Amino acid sequence: MEDPIERALAEIKFGIDGLVPAIAQQHDTGEVLMMAWMNRDAVRASLVEGRACYWSRSRGKLWRKGETSGQTQQLHELRLDCDGDTVLLLVDQHGVACHTGRRNCFFRAWRDGEWVVIAEPQVAPGTLYPGPPHPSPLAGGESEGSV
Amino acid sequence: MEDPIERALAEIKFGIDGLVPAIAQQHDTGEVLMMAWMNRDAVRASLVEGRACYWSRSRGKLWRKGETSGQTQQLHELRLDCDGDTVLLLVDQHGVACHTGRRNCFFRAWRDGEWVVIAEPQVAPGTLYPGPPHPSPLAGGESEGSV
Repeated sequence: MEDPIERALAEIKFGIDGLVPAIAQQHDTGEVLMMAWMNRDAVRASLVEGRACYWSRSRGKLWRKGETSGQTQQLHELRLDCDGDTVLLLVDQHGVACHTGRRNCFFRAWRDGEWVVIAEPQVAPGTLYPGPPHPSPLAGGESEGSV
Repeated sequence: MEDPIERALAEIKFGIDGLVPAIAQQHDTGEVLMMAWMNRDAVRASLVEGRACYWSRSRGKLWRKGETSGQTQQLHELRLDCDGDTVLLLVDQHGVACHTGRRNCFFRAWRDGEWVVIAEPQVAPGTLYPGPPHPSPLAGGESEGSV
């Protein structure tokens, strides 16, 4: 009968751009891995496929996290905040979350009046996005990391 | 000489609305407490005062978290993501983060086809926002929780 995922979507307040912020957190350690955006299709795909799918604002398309890099996020649980306008994804991160090869994207800390890099890449970015047609993520542009 | 906080701000890519998403995480447990928004003034106030300040989109003003409820967030560290467009605040939450009286705002989980409330209020919301002129946060509207 009724599609249960429609019931999930009904409680999420998407913005006027059709998106909600989505925080990805490693389910067992609590590490905040990244922040991206989801539209209705991304939420649906994530629930149906059991893996994190986002909406890439830079590419204007659904982004199955890891589809290029292999660094997928298995979805453990989807949570919704009090206002219904932000979602939290508890995931199991395969490999690294950040397109720079770091485990998480929040590797700059403001300490003693400057931004300090507090984590080094665990994987060489070149191995995440090998060869053409994918541009170097270090050069910015249309990498997976550009959300 | 140069204002160091200007150097902090220079690396943050605020959106066209002047805001960035800000994730608040309990610094020692890793609990994701809430998501709100910051503009330049909110970042500056947070760094200067050592407590989380956000921009309330609903009220259109700077929002010193806890100014009404007393549930302040002591800032331990400000972090910035790879793209520079999301910040992570490691905080020490005094009391509860959510305007419903719950420790964090992400208390709804999608389980077996329905949204399940997985945490109960630790504090009666009425004690967080006593009497007029503050409207009931349960009724929505201009509570601290409306960001």
